[in-house]
Amino acid sequence: MNGEIIAVGTELLLGNIVNTNAQFLSEELSNIGINVYYQTVVGDNKERLEEVIKCALSRADLLILTGGLGPTDDDLTKETVASLLGLDMYLHKESQELIEKYLNKKISQSNLKQAYIPKGAIILKNDNGTAPGIIIENGEKIIVLLPGPPKEMAPMFSQKVKPYLEKKSPYVMRSKILRLFGIGESSIGDKIKDLMQNDNPTVAPYAKDNETILRVTARAASKEEADNLNSKMIKEIDKRLGEFIYSHDDTALNIVCARKLIEKNITIAAAESCTAGLFAATLAETPGISSVLFESVVTYANEAKEKYLGVKHETLEKFGAVSEETAREMADGIRERSKADIGISITGLAGPDGGTEKKPVGLVYIGIATEDGTKTYELKLIGRDRNKIRHAAVMNALSIVYKSLE
Amino acid sequence: MNGEIIAVGTELLLGNIVNTNAQFLSEELSNIGINVYYQTVVGDNKERLEEVIKCALSRADLLILTGGLGPTDDDLTKETVASLLGLDMYLHKESQELIEKYLNKKISQSNLKQAYIPKGAIILKNDNGTAPGIIIENGEKIIVLLPGPPKEMAPMFSQKVKPYLEKKSPYVMRSKILRLFGIGESSIGDKIKDLMQNDNPTVAPYAKDNETILRVTARAASKEEADNLNSKMIKEIDKRLGEFIYSHDDTALNIVCARKLIEKNITIAAAESCTAGLFAATLAETPGISSVLFESVVTYANEAKEKYLGVKHETLEKFGAVSEETAREMADGIRERSKADIGISITGLAGPDGGTEKKPVGLVYIGIATEDGTKTYELKLIGRDRNKIRHAAVMNALSIVYKSLE
Repeated sequence: MNGEIIAVGTELLLGNIVNTNAQFLSEELSNIGINVYYQTVVGDNKERLEEVIKCALSRADLLILTGGLGPTDDDLTKETVASLLGLDMYLHKESQELIEKYLNKKISQSNLKQAYIPKGAIILKNDNGTAPGIIIENGEKIIVLLPGPPKEMAPMFSQKVKPYLEKKSPYVMRSKILRLFGIGESSIGDKIKDLMQNDNPTVAPYAKDNETILRVTARAASKEEADNLNSKMIKEIDKRLGEFIYSHDDTALNIVCARKLIEKNITIAAAESCTAGLFAATLAETPGISSVLFESVVTYANEAKEKYLGVKHETLEKFGAVSEETAREMADGIRERSKADIGISITGLAGPDGGTEKKPVGLVYIGIATEDGTKTYELKLIGRDRNKIRHAAVMNALSIVYKSLE
Repeated sequence: MNGEIIAVGTELLLGNIVNTNAQFLSEELSNIGINVYYQTVVGDNKERLEEVIKCALSRADLLILTGGLGPTDDDLTKETVASLLGLDMYLHKESQELIEKYLNKKISQSNLKQAYIPKGAIILKNDNGTAPGIIIENGEKIIVLLPGPPKEMAPMFSQKVKPYLEKKSPYVMRSKILRLFGIGESSIGDKIKDLMQNDNPTVAPYAKDNETILRVTARAASKEEADNLNSKMIKEIDKRLGEFIYSHDDTALNIVCARKLIEKNITIAAAESCTAGLFAATLAETPGISSVLFESVVTYANEAKEKYLGVKHETLEKFGAVSEETAREMADGIRERSKADIGISITGLAGPDGGTEKKPVGLVYIGIATEDGTKTYELKLIGRDRNKIRHAAVMNALSIVYKSLE
């Protein structure tokens, strides 16, 4: 089965928003084993939409259309599809009642059209908006209509359309996503070249800011068989790249790190200079962080490093704020004064100004103080912009903390 | 003139990446006054790409293709277009030399194909990669080929393609983007309903997280005339909505606020609880912040509020951490201890746990202490998730600071 994705909406053609629906649906279909050969975006225009649908029907088995199910005159996806396929529309009482319940008032004339359904269509209840989705089985073709807003479309697809499509497929595809930090995509390639040429499961690398994703995907007759194939492959990847893999289930580093701290009840405090609170804020995205994060400081100025952390004036004079020595004293200082188990320090040149030949923009020192002593790390994040340097520094600090907990 | 955007790349069809190129180009074309009626995504497949190009040529005057200009076998956009239009390709010596210079080595066989150009095409030098872009004028049609990677495509378009297209247009379109905070999209609609129905300039609202954008676009024979039309419209919008407009040139609130602090040399320090450093980090995105931000604290635990800020134990006992009283003492405390001109405090319930009926998740207090005294603000960010609450709290704090500087 191959699929085509059609996003309906003039706001997309004006470049007002990015077509995240197409990416979401393409990824989801790929995971079920349905190939997508075309994605199209067309405006709220009956003639052009008809043309696009006709074209898609000539080359795809499955059409998924998003958008144009709203209550305004611009919303015409359902009407256009029904008219093209020669299907009458009828008023679906249950949908009308659901819309009235959702809006908490009697249905307006414009909302009423959202309750009209093409004859014979499967109706998908919308738990996050007014417009129901629909699936039309037309001969060999399947046409799925989903709402445009991602927060309505995505749950409806995941909960209602995906199971429907999975039943149509003779096999199951299962993916596991590994996240790696501290090694580049080409070095990863060197270590698992043979695995990346494997047919089933496949191993596909994707570069992200500061990290690499490995997607392991298996195809089999059942979930269990597919999961089994993945496990074997992941075991082999672990053997070769284990020290760089921080998540086997696509969880971001800041969350993985925060959860580990919470689980082990290890308290942490940071003294941040150039990152200015980004490290603490990033840890605090995880609920429950209040059990291990009590205080943290942003010591942007040298005086603040002295005042809050007891960094020696002589150290700052002799080695400068961006130095291994200062990072060490900052980490010791925050650990001591906060009484946390782990003290983290981040001091660096985020730029764009302030760099010299000896200390260029992108030079960052991270210190970690624990009961076992204090270590410092030097990063050279050369050639990046201010905010990329700050984010990379935070990622490195999270990795250093996470590794210290293993 | 109407345009069609074609993105070439199997990684798009697999849902590995989002098609940001289409959004960028659509917005840019819209700003030049070129209508986009279709966007298509197709894979690295000669037959399907040919089909898509033929279809586009039948319905659009301008085709912009991105992707498929690389050195691998999968890259076939240029070859497919040339063959479809019956154009021979020749080796462009200058492009070959530029590629060798960029790679700092003798050109490989695969990179060499990137230096082949269809006869008669305009060549666009790539300052950020190896593949040159090209413009083919084919009768009434214009076909533009650009590299896929955004950091190569976007500058090439802006610096080379846009001026080319602007010359082809009989008129000029100019936009100004206003950013509004503290008023909802429908209230904005109420106040400028008549202006939003204007034909030239047009006024279009876009909702973003925590704020609304108003895009004012004028069409005229010259830049000056268009700018003039925009200025008159913006003057009227200022009359009605001025108190909510924080930027007349699409600059984000954290940058606007930071620049104002730096310009006026007004120092600031924050005491953050639930936002945990996000406020300080957000201000520090702007270079030069070190002249006004010397220190900031994250006082997540009650004890930390007492220790760092001198918040009274009785206040915390009686009113709780999330209260107007605590916010006030936090703001006073950080201002006093840091000696900053402005002391900001943020304390709230980010959730998902910890809410009660009296103090629900989403309840946030912000305090601002200046030489003129201390004010507190209560926010009820109900129904949002943890990180949306934290970001909204930061936006509100930035707005409060910014307004205090006016």
